[in-house]
Amino acid sequence: MEAEELGNGDDLEASLISGCSYFEDDRAAHVRRCLSNTTSQLAIIGSNLCPIESLDYELIENDFLKKQDWRSRSAARIMQYVILKWSLCFLVGALSGALGFFINLAVENIAGIKFVVTSNMMLANKYGWAFGVFAVSNFVLLMFASAITTFVSPAAAGSGIPEVMSYLNGVDAPNIFSMKTLFVKVVGSIAAVSSSLHIGKAGPMIHSTACISSILGQGGSRKYKLTSRWLRYFKNDRDRRDLITCGAGAGIAAAFRAPLGGVLFSLECVSSWWRSALLWRSFFTTAVVLVVLRALIDVCRSGKCGLFGQGGLIMFDVTSADVTYHLVDLPPAIILGVIGGILGSLHNLLLEKVLRVYNLINERGHFYKLLLAALVSIFTSCCIFGLPWLASCKPCPTTGLSEPCPSIGRSGNFKKFQCAFDHYNDLASLFFNTNDDAIRNLYSAGTDRVFQKSSVVLFFVATYILGIISYGIAVPAGLFVPVILTGATYGRLVGMLTGSHSTLNHGLFAVLGSASLLGGSMRMTVSTCIILLELTNNLLLLPLVMLVLLISKTVADAFNSNIYDLIVKLKGLPYLKSHAEPYMRQLTVGDVVGGPLQMFNGVEKVSNIVHVLKTTGHNGFPVIDEPPFSDSSVLFGLILRSHLLVLLKKKQFLYTRRLASLDASKQFSYDDFAKRGSGKHETIEGIELTAEEMDMYIDLHPFANTSPYTVVETMSLAKALILFREVGLRHLLVIPKSTSRAPVVGILTRHDFTPEHILQVHPFLLRSRWTKLQLGKENLFQIFKGFI
Amino acid sequence: MEAEELGNGDDLEASLISGCSYFEDDRAAHVRRCLSNTTSQLAIIGSNLCPIESLDYELIENDFLKKQDWRSRSAARIMQYVILKWSLCFLVGALSGALGFFINLAVENIAGIKFVVTSNMMLANKYGWAFGVFAVSNFVLLMFASAITTFVSPAAAGSGIPEVMSYLNGVDAPNIFSMKTLFVKVVGSIAAVSSSLHIGKAGPMIHSTACISSILGQGGSRKYKLTSRWLRYFKNDRDRRDLITCGAGAGIAAAFRAPLGGVLFSLECVSSWWRSALLWRSFFTTAVVLVVLRALIDVCRSGKCGLFGQGGLIMFDVTSADVTYHLVDLPPAIILGVIGGILGSLHNLLLEKVLRVYNLINERGHFYKLLLAALVSIFTSCCIFGLPWLASCKPCPTTGLSEPCPSIGRSGNFKKFQCAFDHYNDLASLFFNTNDDAIRNLYSAGTDRVFQKSSVVLFFVATYILGIISYGIAVPAGLFVPVILTGATYGRLVGMLTGSHSTLNHGLFAVLGSASLLGGSMRMTVSTCIILLELTNNLLLLPLVMLVLLISKTVADAFNSNIYDLIVKLKGLPYLKSHAEPYMRQLTVGDVVGGPLQMFNGVEKVSNIVHVLKTTGHNGFPVIDEPPFSDSSVLFGLILRSHLLVLLKKKQFLYTRRLASLDASKQFSYDDFAKRGSGKHETIEGIELTAEEMDMYIDLHPFANTSPYTVVETMSLAKALILFREVGLRHLLVIPKSTSRAPVVGILTRHDFTPEHILQVHPFLLRSRWTKLQLGKENLFQIFKGFI
Repeated sequence: MEAEELGNGDDLEASLISGCSYFEDDRAAHVRRCLSNTTSQLAIIGSNLCPIESLDYELIENDFLKKQDWRSRSAARIMQYVILKWSLCFLVGALSGALGFFINLAVENIAGIKFVVTSNMMLANKYGWAFGVFAVSNFVLLMFASAITTFVSPAAAGSGIPEVMSYLNGVDAPNIFSMKTLFVKVVGSIAAVSSSLHIGKAGPMIHSTACISSILGQGGSRKYKLTSRWLRYFKNDRDRRDLITCGAGAGIAAAFRAPLGGVLFSLECVSSWWRSALLWRSFFTTAVVLVVLRALIDVCRSGKCGLFGQGGLIMFDVTSADVTYHLVDLPPAIILGVIGGILGSLHNLLLEKVLRVYNLINERGHFYKLLLAALVSIFTSCCIFGLPWLASCKPCPTTGLSEPCPSIGRSGNFKKFQCAFDHYNDLASLFFNTNDDAIRNLYSAGTDRVFQKSSVVLFFVATYILGIISYGIAVPAGLFVPVILTGATYGRLVGMLTGSHSTLNHGLFAVLGSASLLGGSMRMTVSTCIILLELTNNLLLLPLVMLVLLISKTVADAFNSNIYDLIVKLKGLPYLKSHAEPYMRQLTVGDVVGGPLQMFNGVEKVSNIVHVLKTTGHNGFPVIDEPPFSDSSVLFGLILRSHLLVLLKKKQFLYTRRLASLDASKQFSYDDFAKRGSGKHETIEGIELTAEEMDMYIDLHPFANTSPYTVVETMSLAKALILFREVGLRHLLVIPKSTSRAPVVGILTRHDFTPEHILQVHPFLLRSRWTKLQLGKENLFQIFKGFI
Repeated sequence: MEAEELGNGDDLEASLISGCSYFEDDRAAHVRRCLSNTTSQLAIIGSNLCPIESLDYELIENDFLKKQDWRSRSAARIMQYVILKWSLCFLVGALSGALGFFINLAVENIAGIKFVVTSNMMLANKYGWAFGVFAVSNFVLLMFASAITTFVSPAAAGSGIPEVMSYLNGVDAPNIFSMKTLFVKVVGSIAAVSSSLHIGKAGPMIHSTACISSILGQGGSRKYKLTSRWLRYFKNDRDRRDLITCGAGAGIAAAFRAPLGGVLFSLECVSSWWRSALLWRSFFTTAVVLVVLRALIDVCRSGKCGLFGQGGLIMFDVTSADVTYHLVDLPPAIILGVIGGILGSLHNLLLEKVLRVYNLINERGHFYKLLLAALVSIFTSCCIFGLPWLASCKPCPTTGLSEPCPSIGRSGNFKKFQCAFDHYNDLASLFFNTNDDAIRNLYSAGTDRVFQKSSVVLFFVATYILGIISYGIAVPAGLFVPVILTGATYGRLVGMLTGSHSTLNHGLFAVLGSASLLGGSMRMTVSTCIILLELTNNLLLLPLVMLVLLISKTVADAFNSNIYDLIVKLKGLPYLKSHAEPYMRQLTVGDVVGGPLQMFNGVEKVSNIVHVLKTTGHNGFPVIDEPPFSDSSVLFGLILRSHLLVLLKKKQFLYTRRLASLDASKQFSYDDFAKRGSGKHETIEGIELTAEEMDMYIDLHPFANTSPYTVVETMSLAKALILFREVGLRHLLVIPKSTSRAPVVGILTRHDFTPEHILQVHPFLLRSRWTKLQLGKENLFQIFKGFI
């Protein structure tokens, strides 16, 4: 049994790290039994993981679909398809823009009211009450977010970017793009961010827009009769993948008002397959986002949006037209890069440790999840309200102010806090604000004298720690904003320490600091660069930002890998990297694939098919032609489980073992074989067949994919991986070298390329030098890998 | 013979369009005889084309190289490799930056002196002399450029971007990256641009930087002892391809001072394979370009660079900080987009026609090439000197001038021309300047009243025509600058006509006009957008530029394909697109591959190998094991012609048909099998063997690639193309479906996927609907294809 699983195993339980029961005998049954999704942030080590399926990105070319393919249809149908594709992109863009605006509006208003009420109480010297109101409102908001996440959709916890990355890599975890997840992600993110936690909204934003794309791409709902004939051409994984890629770009575009940054983020970081046609479509989507966002912000300029005011990050510009820099500015930039690299990799390391601990807590039950969230909320409230007392009051600057100082009765930037009139507390200006406002304060030019060194140091230490301990609790939480904020803080600090040795103002130092920590933690280069430039609207900074990013990424790559890779690994998602590991070149595909495997004849008995489908969880079966249908035993093609289920359900069986004479296209329609939405599967248990029917036959020929990709068993594993990854396969048939054997010796799936599987089959590799390197024992090699 | 060629044909003579003697019997001999390169702009229709080879991007995994591979080497060796890789990128960046600066400096000075001398003569009322000096200097400069192109390196003619695109697609045309080509490209481009021809320097710039990358990547020169042991790890096509990809990005970065634009241009337009590691390396290269460029420009600010002055496009900023736009600005932007789409596709159409005519002239001989260049030069001089006389003089504006009006004795923008003192000729300000200065004039803000409508209309018509007739003569000539200039002209015109209906100034209209024509002609979106934003240093324009680009590309795609695709097709370069054409899904690989083909036994007789190598031009041969070396006849691997030649040259033969007992790694070194530089090939004629040696044997096992990619003969051609293209193959082995036949039935190469080959083998497809569509008979489908 085990050997068979190896050869044909397909349901990718991401049990690789968690060590769960992948190779157990009751696996097939277990797979179907376990329906709740725990692939979220909360389901990491040791928990019982759920069936993660691969996606079918390969073109299925069988006789039936070839006739039904839209490409062989009339120009009108093609037009329908094209219009649909672009309309969906437009819709995704428009909805993403509106959603981004709505989330910002909600956060600014909820958090704004909270700060205004608290400030007013402090103005009346009711400090105890003020803290009470502040802490309780934070607590309630976070508990709400945590409760809906825990009870409604655990998949909505965390950033969501790792899930989107994995989906686009071909891994479909259940519920990650469901309606529930979207709802929890949006509402939970608003509540959690408003609760003054040090978390971001960009990650949840990307996940939400990906959800929107996925829901739109699933072609409505049959249950609620919300589907349309037009949408049927979209019912396949390829088109959905494209749409979700565009959606992910739209998410960043909406979060940071950065359309180019969105396209590049989705290209550099999120997507695994990219075509130049997609570049254009993605660009269109983010352009729509931008237009919608601008129009909505224009509406708010007239003051109709409550406390929206400066509107978080989406309205932020640093347009200081005359940025000049000279040779003397290079050393501080280089120092910032190095610091960013070190702090960034340390951030990733600490975050990983914290996540491991949190997961031990979270998996103990719902109560513990809520308890953890509660503790983090109380700790954060104490920090935010308590630490500003340590700072001394500063007199308000008399010139060059764009807003009143201190700001009273509104959510301003010069916080009075405990100070006397005409004074402000600079630490409170950072702590006692939304994260977005704190970033804006740090970025602003002409504020070199506003902050004291001690305050900035204190704020830096606090944000660094708060950023790490806030991620991993059961709420939707992004990583971008805390990283940007922490980076900006030490950037300012470096600016202050450099003093007159540099011609840059401290606001620009803060921008460079953010760049360095983003480079050190996320390890993206081009997209970070463009996002920051679009955010600050200042192209002149480009060379310095590039320099800082290159240095910080290089330094950080020496220590560990990027934060999303770490999280994907922690979650046990079987993400397939694009390059082969060195030890894979020492193995052939025959070394990892096992046999015998389940195959069907071209004309197969129904009972046989039912038996195989019931006893295995495989998703693809080779179809073999034997005499009298061919001269010798030859491979005809590959048939998918989902297609077999359709055939069984339609019950168009044959009485004898012969080729079906009828035209399949008359009995079946294209819609029958359409891929259903994520998580919606037909099951073999749902199909009831009589004893008579069980004795009949099905002609599989018209429905088998006649062009499956194949490799010879002596092909090196590394090169098979390149084929598997570049073409985006789910099944790769292994054919024998010698002509005297059966026409297929096994099927390679994603699972067979994972290091954990390979090392299980070939334990001797564990002792070899290359595995050690691959497993990160020798960090020197990690440096090289980054460069190669 | 013909059937054999079909199956195994590899030397891709791009004879597809030219109808030259690909299937002739004397082909193999012909291939080696024809050594001069004519794949340049000048060698289009009907001329005798030369051997174009595919590149080996596939990893060769044979026993010998597996042991020698750097990945199995010590950490020090890996470090060496990584350092080398990054140093080469740094060098490419630094040299590209310096080259870009040098070309700009040279052009500004040469053209500047010419304009100053001519203007001074006109000031002295010597109009005849002025025209004489102007026309003669243009003529001399262009004749020089044309002569070195014609006689030294015909491959340097034209833009060079199509050649770089094709190289990165896997097509190696001889001499495109040679030292000679680099020299001619740089010097010729300076002379041609200085001769006031309406051509650009961005295309030649990209070709030059690609040349630099290729020369650096070839590991120095053995002839001049300029090589190093370090460089040997770079002697393969994959690493060279990566370096040239970075080089192409550096070219754009240097031409427009647009580092992000460079990276994206190389991603969107030039490269066929892209990895995210490459994004980072490319980004690093363009960052180096930017730093070098800035440093050099800073040197010039002190005025030491003669007439460098405002330094062409590389110093151009439109930093009008307060760009605001409203709903009323959308209609003109949409109109601009539509106009750009129509004019862009018309531009492509006319350019194609002109190129076809020019090629008929050019191929008649060197004299005709020079004659054509001479005629174009004289015509251009007449236009530039003659047309400004049609404009009426305008009085100098009294306020808001950043430079004297009229500009006397220097290369200024307010040209006095024939006017009285205190007046200037606005048409001369456009015509009687370098193209870069004209673009700057059109882009500048606050100049809404400087130009008259009639002048702009006249200038538009003239530049549109001059831009089309100037490309295609035997000089290095880019397409970017003329397109930008023409676009800016009608952009201004639209701005003038819109008048007070829009809040944008005419300079911004000019920028949008450029965007629209670039979108209509080149059909790039993201990269054009970023290049324009970086050029004008104005991120606020982003939404409008995006809108204009989307519209113009959409409109233009309805008519024809982008300019580079047209040129690649005209040149007959076998560029492999990433998507399969619909009719390919109706064919299997067995339909296009022919047999029998040349195969070798695992241990093969020397005379047999020599005979096959002498009589065919194939570059890959399957190696078959037969009893007694295996149980039955099985495929062992694939051996390359170049490796066979190395084996024959080393003469390590066996006396009997047996496996070699010696370790191959002791007899051969890694360097022996290193791929030599472009165009440098060992030939079978160069190897002399005695009769005794001819009777001996070679064991091919250690040297054959044991992991060639294979497809079953029933695989659909479309899916085989996806594999071939995505993985970047040169040979794809076709194995039989039935086990009773020979282990290999054919080899697919690039040639087998070209429409011309397929339609020759299956003429009935010519009458099918899908071919008609593919061949562009139904333009409606072209629209869809652009969207899909």
